[in-house]
Amino acid sequence: MPKREKKGVSGIVTLTTDFGLQGGYIGAVKGSILKVNPLCQIVDITHLVSPQNIIEASFIIKTTYPFFPAGTIHLVIVDPGVGTGRKPIVLKEGKHIFVGPDNGVFSLILAGSTKIQSYQITCKEFFLKPLSHTFHGRDLFAPVAGHLSLGLDPKSLGPRLENLFEVEWPEPKVQAKRIVGRIIFADSFGNLITNISREQYGGILEGRGILIQGKGWKIGRLCRTYGQGQIGQPMALFGSSGFLEVAVHEGNAMKKLNLHPGDPIPILFFGGR
Amino acid sequence: MPKREKKGVSGIVTLTTDFGLQGGYIGAVKGSILKVNPLCQIVDITHLVSPQNIIEASFIIKTTYPFFPAGTIHLVIVDPGVGTGRKPIVLKEGKHIFVGPDNGVFSLILAGSTKIQSYQITCKEFFLKPLSHTFHGRDLFAPVAGHLSLGLDPKSLGPRLENLFEVEWPEPKVQAKRIVGRIIFADSFGNLITNISREQYGGILEGRGILIQGKGWKIGRLCRTYGQGQIGQPMALFGSSGFLEVAVHEGNAMKKLNLHPGDPIPILFFGGR
Amino acid sequence: MPKREKKGVSGIVTLTTDFGLQGGYIGAVKGSILKVNPLCQIVDITHLVSPQNIIEASFIIKTTYPFFPAGTIHLVIVDPGVGTGRKPIVLKEGKHIFVGPDNGVFSLILAGSTKIQSYQITCKEFFLKPLSHTFHGRDLFAPVAGHLSLGLDPKSLGPRLENLFEVEWPEPKVQAKRIVGRIIFADSFGNLITNISREQYGGILEGRGILIQGKGWKIGRLCRTYGQGQIGQPMALFGSSGFLEVAVHEGNAMKKLNLHPGDPIPILFFGGR
Repeated sequence: MPKREKKGVSGIVTLTTDFGLQGGYIGAVKGSILKVNPLCQIVDITHLVSPQNIIEASFIIKTTYPFFPAGTIHLVIVDPGVGTGRKPIVLKEGKHIFVGPDNGVFSLILAGSTKIQSYQITCKEFFLKPLSHTFHGRDLFAPVAGHLSLGLDPKSLGPRLENLFEVEWPEPKVQAKRIVGRIIFADSFGNLITNISREQYGGILEGRGILIQGKGWKIGRLCRTYGQGQIGQPMALFGSSGFLEVAVHEGNAMKKLNLHPGDPIPILFFGGR
Repeated sequence: MPKREKKGVSGIVTLTTDFGLQGGYIGAVKGSILKVNPLCQIVDITHLVSPQNIIEASFIIKTTYPFFPAGTIHLVIVDPGVGTGRKPIVLKEGKHIFVGPDNGVFSLILAGSTKIQSYQITCKEFFLKPLSHTFHGRDLFAPVAGHLSLGLDPKSLGPRLENLFEVEWPEPKVQAKRIVGRIIFADSFGNLITNISREQYGGILEGRGILIQGKGWKIGRLCRTYGQGQIGQPMALFGSSGFLEVAVHEGNAMKKLNLHPGDPIPILFFGGR
Repeated sequence: MPKREKKGVSGIVTLTTDFGLQGGYIGAVKGSILKVNPLCQIVDITHLVSPQNIIEASFIIKTTYPFFPAGTIHLVIVDPGVGTGRKPIVLKEGKHIFVGPDNGVFSLILAGSTKIQSYQITCKEFFLKPLSHTFHGRDLFAPVAGHLSLGLDPKSLGPRLENLFEVEWPEPKVQAKRIVGRIIFADSFGNLITNISREQYGGILEGRGILIQGKGWKIGRLCRTYGQGQIGQPMALFGSSGFLEVAVHEGNAMKKLNLHPGDPIPILFFGGR
């Protein structure tokens, strides 16, 4: 009987995919993990990444994985290039392990770290046979994740791989009195999360007057909590993921302001501090 | 290594939220529980409570929790007031433990019981640091639930708290020959579940003639099963949650009858028994 | 304390339902399983089977269950006839066990096997009391699945039952130079999965010229991977479930081609091999 926790691993595998919740795809991936490690604890992060949206997947895993125990395996499958030349990879960042295609889904994790070890998965020993051409999530990544969750060393999966593929993360443009950010993601409440991180831009924006405006609305200050907003009115704050959000207190900013992922968010700032 | 089952706890934590299924919020909450108790069994009740709908959350947890094993921790996070003055609380009702904001999400559980012990969570020892202003689900409630699932006594989280906040549950109006209920919730089949409980009103309605009518449709009797209805026709029955439902056999009552949560359902009853 | 793995069982229960993700139904089913076996590993296959679509449920479980470990219990609840005369059943196919209503949800599993043992569930000992008329998923199937996951022999649930109810699976029509299939299921990417199995029809179609056409579009060959298609253009391939799919590379075939489950897909084939 496999042990629930081996040295260095938590026995937990997280899933982040764009598979949606219909049909049997997620079930097949989970079955394929459990066939290797029946005691694995599988945790859904989300299966509703916008189809083939690699930047969104990258953002979600980056802002979520640190909350998991050390030794957790994170499987990220947004994989439009399945069955073509893109490489399957495994990364080790601190005490977390990431598995998925080398197509940029780990860009933000790579960007935040200098000590990542990365390997191409070439060892076919763990793959399902026959390996399908269209569903590496189930046939390749899942069983590999299962073995990693039992303590398999990522090194044993294949050779070191440098120069991983990275998608271009849209950086905010900073001008004299203006930062122009971009909406990366709209959450289920309709909160619009931008690429303006508190870490990098909090020093500029916090404690200053700001102005964000659109057709018929404007936001004149940064709040700290949703509750500080006025019901039904737009507001801005650094949210729980560490990025600036445009929200509507007890409402849906995406619908009310008609803004969507990809749209620019220009912020004027002024005054001393 | 933490044990899966300690004295008095099942090792299970349930989640009921309005977070939706996109993005990393639920994943972060689960990670935060598992960091405390990696062997915790986490069960999603639902993450699709209508945004900020406290009555709906209260209804769902009330009708679902009794089916779980004794010693289960139930985390309910519908929390529009996060970061404002509302208190985080923990309740003990019989052998179940509830954790969430003191904003009324536990109203129906309080209403059904006289022996609840309730505590304000003031002990910051278990919170994530820094505690965010916008995501207590992840930073406060989740780690507390993780510790409770390991057997922590709710008493050790803070002082007794009486006079909990309660939302007003819409009671049916009872008249001479009429009960006027209200739709609380529409399930995924479009069944319209009202506030008319079998426990309180079954004695009046069962075995009698009834009449519920709308534009172009009427229901003339109470059924016991969906199968007793006619395909495509509206019908009424006391459903599995113990409340009167208006349904359409093999159809969607919400769409077909154009009725929605909040709408009144007047029921005439007549005849002896 | 129940053991996680008994002889012959994996301790895993999968769920395939049309309950949707709102409300407490799935939570109640899971609670009801865990009350019997608190260490059960419950895996959602999907809860978004189209309401009361028995053929879709049958397709999903058939193409997903083989990826789970031997000794897994598969609970399939698409049950429009709940509370009427339809029988609750348990099936044993190889090392997998299936539980659900005898209404055709297991048709495709029956069709693929000659060595199934099937039993009617008559032993009321394991049911919740009172047994509701409307929610056998929670009150009957869930606790039975919980006991099976602990190693209960299906035989002990009731007598052998032959002549199970089977829904008519729409077989492709094969003509001289044409196969007319039908769309069974559209996945979350909008890929249209037909009833044309590779097992039966791969021999006819692979390596030949084909023609599938609709208003303003045509597909002239079989691909092996999504990546072989042209971005935004329709394509056909045998997908990961072993059935022919019509897809749009990096797009949504259901929306782009305006085709839906139930629609016919005629395929001309020609040339030698």
